[in-house]
Amino acid sequence: MTAETVSKSRCFGGTQGVYTHESSVTGTPMTFQVYVPDHAPGAKLPVLWWLSGLTCTHANAMEKCEYKRACAEHGIILVGPDTSPRGEDVPDDEAYDFGKGAGFYVDATQDPWAQHFRMRSYIEQELPALIAEAFPVDMDRQGISGHSMGGHGALTISLRNPGRFRSTSAFAPIVSPLNCPWGEKALTGYIGDDRSAWREYDACALIEDGARLPDLLVDQGRADNFLDEQLKTHLLEAACAAANMPATIRMQEGYDHSYFFVSSFIDDHIAWHAERLKK
Amino acid sequence: MTAETVSKSRCFGGTQGVYTHESSVTGTPMTFQVYVPDHAPGAKLPVLWWLSGLTCTHANAMEKCEYKRACAEHGIILVGPDTSPRGEDVPDDEAYDFGKGAGFYVDATQDPWAQHFRMRSYIEQELPALIAEAFPVDMDRQGISGHSMGGHGALTISLRNPGRFRSTSAFAPIVSPLNCPWGEKALTGYIGDDRSAWREYDACALIEDGARLPDLLVDQGRADNFLDEQLKTHLLEAACAAANMPATIRMQEGYDHSYFFVSSFIDDHIAWHAERLKK
Repeated sequence: MTAETVSKSRCFGGTQGVYTHESSVTGTPMTFQVYVPDHAPGAKLPVLWWLSGLTCTHANAMEKCEYKRACAEHGIILVGPDTSPRGEDVPDDEAYDFGKGAGFYVDATQDPWAQHFRMRSYIEQELPALIAEAFPVDMDRQGISGHSMGGHGALTISLRNPGRFRSTSAFAPIVSPLNCPWGEKALTGYIGDDRSAWREYDACALIEDGARLPDLLVDQGRADNFLDEQLKTHLLEAACAAANMPATIRMQEGYDHSYFFVSSFIDDHIAWHAERLKK
Repeated sequence: MTAETVSKSRCFGGTQGVYTHESSVTGTPMTFQVYVPDHAPGAKLPVLWWLSGLTCTHANAMEKCEYKRACAEHGIILVGPDTSPRGEDVPDDEAYDFGKGAGFYVDATQDPWAQHFRMRSYIEQELPALIAEAFPVDMDRQGISGHSMGGHGALTISLRNPGRFRSTSAFAPIVSPLNCPWGEKALTGYIGDDRSAWREYDACALIEDGARLPDLLVDQGRADNFLDEQLKTHLLEAACAAANMPATIRMQEGYDHSYFFVSSFIDDHIAWHAERLKK
C-alpha cells in the first residue's frame, strides 16, 4: 500500500504534502494532504484527522484553515482527505450537495452510488492503514475534527468507534442528517428510504442510541446562514444534555459558515486536541 | 468616491471585507480586500498594504497568507488590491506573466496597455485616497509588503515615495526587473524599449540612483524555483550594501515560492511592521 507524492512544501517548520493513491475501497484514485511538523528521528507524533465540508477537496482546509502553525507548535500531524471519490467513471449529481464533493462520510448502498461512494470505510479503515504505514504517526493518539459535512463526519465516526479517538471537535457540524434537507437528500440518495438505517450516520441519533464520547468541543457561528435550516446545533446540545455527555458547544457571535470562521478558532481546537493527545 | 461591499465576514475578532469600486485611473471596476480588527469607536488604525504576485487577484492573500490573526493582535488594518485591471474590454496576453494578473505596479505607456494598466497610479494615489475616506485608517502610519511581483511593487513604491511608509518588507521579491526575464518582458511590453525608463520600476536601480529606506525586511526561500533566474536576491543585498542601506535579508532554508512559505513568516513581518507603525 503506497501513496505517490503530488507536492511537498516546507511550511511553518514542517512539511505540507499532497499525496495520491489507488483506493481499493472507492475503486478510484484518492488524493489527501498531510502536514508533518519537524520531529526527532524515529519519533511518532499524534495525528489529527480533518474532514472537510460540501464542495471541498483535500485542498480547501490546506489553503484556508490556518492549522499549520498550531500543529507545528504542538507537534501534531494533520491528515485531510478528499470529501468523495472523483473521476470520470464516478457518478455525479448537478447539485453541490450530492455526488462528487458531497460523500457525506457514508458507505452508500443505493445504485449508482454504492460502487464508489464508500467514504465511511475509506476514512475508517483504508486511509488510516495507509497513514499508519507511510507517516510517523502514533495511532494510539488520534483526534478528529471537521467542518460542516466534515463536522458530521468527525462526530459520527468518533461516536461509532469508541476509544479510537482521544479527542473530537467540530466546526458548524451537521448534527442531525435525519432532521435537515442536506441530510435527507444525501441519506435518501446514498442509503435509501429506511430512515432507521440512517441513525448510524446521525450524531444525535447515535448519542440517543447509547454512543458516548468522553467530551466534545464544537464551535458554531451565530451568523451562519445554514444554522437554522441545516445545522441545528440545539439538537446536539439537547442530545448531549439528555445523555449527560460532557460537551463544550460555543455559539460565536457574528461568525458565518466560511473558513474565515474556522480559521478564527482553529488554534483553540488544536490546543484542545493537543491537551488530550499528549497525555 | 465610494466602494461597494461585495462580502463581509467576521474573522479573528475583526472584519474581512471585499469591496469593489469604479476606478477612474484604470477605467475599470477594481476589487480589493480589507481586514479591519475591532477597535474603539473613532480610533484610527495603522494600515499595511499587501501587494500580491503574478496570477493573483485580491483573494489569494486573503485566503492563504494567514495575516489576520497577527493583524488583529497588533491592531493593524490590511489592504490587498488586485494585481491588474480586469474586464472584457481590458487587453490581455495568453501568458501568465503579462496582461491580466500581471500589472507589475507600473503605469504603462505602450499601446494597447496604456489605457488601463495604470497600477502605479492606482496603488499610489487613487486607492489610498479611497481607503483614507472609507476606512478607519491613520494614513500617517502606513506600511507596505508583498510577494514576488508584489514584493517588487512594495519595494519600488516605498522607495519612490520617501517618508510615506514607516515600514517596508517583502517576500521573495523580484528585486531587479532590469535583470530578469519576467521584468524584461513586462517592462518592454508596458513601458517600451528604453531601459533607462525602467529604472523607477527596479528596486536595485532606485537604490543605485539614490533612493533610500530607513530599513527593510526581506524573506526569501532557498528552495524557490524562481530564485536564480527571476528573483536574484543577491542583487538587492549588493545594492543595499553599496548604498549602506540597512536591510535584513533572510534566506530561508527549504522554503519555496508559495504561500506556504509566505504564511510561515507573515507573523514575523507583521510584528516587524507593528513595531514601526505603533511608534
